[in-house]
Amino acid sequence: MPVGTQGSVKAIEQRELNEVGAQIILGNTYHLYLRPGTEIIQTAGGLHRFIGWNKPILTDSGGYQVFSLNELREIEEEGVTFKSHLDGSSHVFTPESVVQIQRQLGSDIMMVLDECTPYPSEPEYAKLSNAMTVRWAERCKNAFESGAELYGYSQSLFGIVQGSIFPEIRRQSAQALVKIGFDGYAIGGLAVGEPADVMYSMIEVCEPLLPADQPRYLMGVGTPVNLLEAVARGVDMFDCVLPTRNGRNANFFTRSGSINIRNAKYKTDFTPPDPECSCYTCGSFSRAYLRHLFQVKEILGLQLATIHNLSFYLWLMREARAAIKERRFGEWKMKMVSQLCAEDKVVEI
Amino acid sequence: MPVGTQGSVKAIEQRELNEVGAQIILGNTYHLYLRPGTEIIQTAGGLHRFIGWNKPILTDSGGYQVFSLNELREIEEEGVTFKSHLDGSSHVFTPESVVQIQRQLGSDIMMVLDECTPYPSEPEYAKLSNAMTVRWAERCKNAFESGAELYGYSQSLFGIVQGSIFPEIRRQSAQALVKIGFDGYAIGGLAVGEPADVMYSMIEVCEPLLPADQPRYLMGVGTPVNLLEAVARGVDMFDCVLPTRNGRNANFFTRSGSINIRNAKYKTDFTPPDPECSCYTCGSFSRAYLRHLFQVKEILGLQLATIHNLSFYLWLMREARAAIKERRFGEWKMKMVSQLCAEDKVVEI
Repeated sequence: MPVGTQGSVKAIEQRELNEVGAQIILGNTYHLYLRPGTEIIQTAGGLHRFIGWNKPILTDSGGYQVFSLNELREIEEEGVTFKSHLDGSSHVFTPESVVQIQRQLGSDIMMVLDECTPYPSEPEYAKLSNAMTVRWAERCKNAFESGAELYGYSQSLFGIVQGSIFPEIRRQSAQALVKIGFDGYAIGGLAVGEPADVMYSMIEVCEPLLPADQPRYLMGVGTPVNLLEAVARGVDMFDCVLPTRNGRNANFFTRSGSINIRNAKYKTDFTPPDPECSCYTCGSFSRAYLRHLFQVKEILGLQLATIHNLSFYLWLMREARAAIKERRFGEWKMKMVSQLCAEDKVVEI
Repeated sequence: MPVGTQGSVKAIEQRELNEVGAQIILGNTYHLYLRPGTEIIQTAGGLHRFIGWNKPILTDSGGYQVFSLNELREIEEEGVTFKSHLDGSSHVFTPESVVQIQRQLGSDIMMVLDECTPYPSEPEYAKLSNAMTVRWAERCKNAFESGAELYGYSQSLFGIVQGSIFPEIRRQSAQALVKIGFDGYAIGGLAVGEPADVMYSMIEVCEPLLPADQPRYLMGVGTPVNLLEAVARGVDMFDCVLPTRNGRNANFFTRSGSINIRNAKYKTDFTPPDPECSCYTCGSFSRAYLRHLFQVKEILGLQLATIHNLSFYLWLMREARAAIKERRFGEWKMKMVSQLCAEDKVVEI
């Protein structure tokens, strides 16, 4: 899912999101709640109509951003009180209020309010934090069931598995959420600084406990290799700012490793960023031109990098789906990861 | 002509320039000469191939930018010595060298090196300056005729009428240039601070002296009303950063005046920026959404404003051409100017 934090996937038009093959995008409740505000979006008839996007939207609960505020927030059983990073004004998110906000946004997939346990955490903290996350999940479910959609189409609610890097807490979390019952399950609290191997083993811990016929969503991940390793472990959905943010930093993902287009060696390289890619950028422009655009700080560079990187990520996921269908995923993945490994060395989230 | 200073019309893709109806774009020799440098563009096979634009390109001579450097340049009969605004390195533009650079760029229309006389200037200065501009024009013509195109298609060379706001010098300039003989004639040195009425009367002074069967090009102009007034006085071509630059400043040109989309009154205005406009922006997005994009500083706001404003300008020129063809220009212009007058009050170049 390309990330459209503030109601726009940065530097790309909605029609271009369709063109690159996006089936769903993500919006951030925290940001949209503050600006333009839930009321304006509701008056517009929901987020889809407000931003002109008629495919699915997933919204997070706002929890992740709120917990990132650190000094500006206070967690209690009832919910979390926080000060806006924009003007310092005080606000409260409760499990019930974030469900209500997401009703007003009209997202197709709503997320429960959770605490994204910081990394590293002591097991005792992770246990208490997750217990509250589970209680909040139950309150979200109740609020979800007692409310109704506002725009004539149904919405889904996903739970979020927490538990830091502790297998036993992860298991308790997954089991408790499945018992409450959600339309899909996210694995949260990963890609927050732990080694990739630890992330992969946490996915392995959760996976067998999550219903096979419901989507599993790994939040905030990741590099192309991260995605393939997670798919291999049973994950269906991802969101990450990496393709868009790195693109705006001149980093082009390609089938044979990632390249920083600012590199002097591309000065007179008139080949496309990724010769095998069929996107607008690769079909129309050379590395030399793209390098020039970044050197002289033209906005077009950001646009063309975003188009390419999202095309690449969505191509990679289409290929993965096709390989799974044709029962050749393992082989394909091994080949792909080795091609991509040059890339992941230079990528930072 | 949308302005593509550094080989990109800011915040819009080449395919979108086609979509909004651009028939020709402008590139700036000074900027392209410095970055990426003439050699790289020549290695690419010319500017069209380098930037991926297969319709005409007009390049200026670089003179305007060089003369704007003030402290960093020195004018002599031979040419102008200047220091790069980027790294202070020293360079020389002569009438011959700017023709050669534009040969390497491969622009369809090349401009002679001229001195854009500052406003205000004393008549004596304007006279001497214009005399040199005419001598430089002749040297450009000679260099043009003794050289050859590099990429298998012919190029045109336009002269530039100067003379500040002094009718007699303007007349001498136009007559001298026509005597040398160019493929088209620009009127330069206007829209540099003089009142609009003075600009209009300077066009009136030049117009009868410029061949009716060759294009007249008013450089660096202007607002929608400026364009219509100049068309009424016989001008065929324009370039201006106004639609793109003002767009990036949240200013939307519309058929009934210009609007600043940041205005609070658009908070819940779910109508398009210009309801009569058929561009992608107006067909897909509301004022409320565009306001939000500018409020939260999303790049998409710049993209959508640019698409709309260029669509508007190019629509206006198409309408003008149709009205001229159907011999109803005078009537149409009067109506249009009165519709647009609200707009021009708030527009600043």
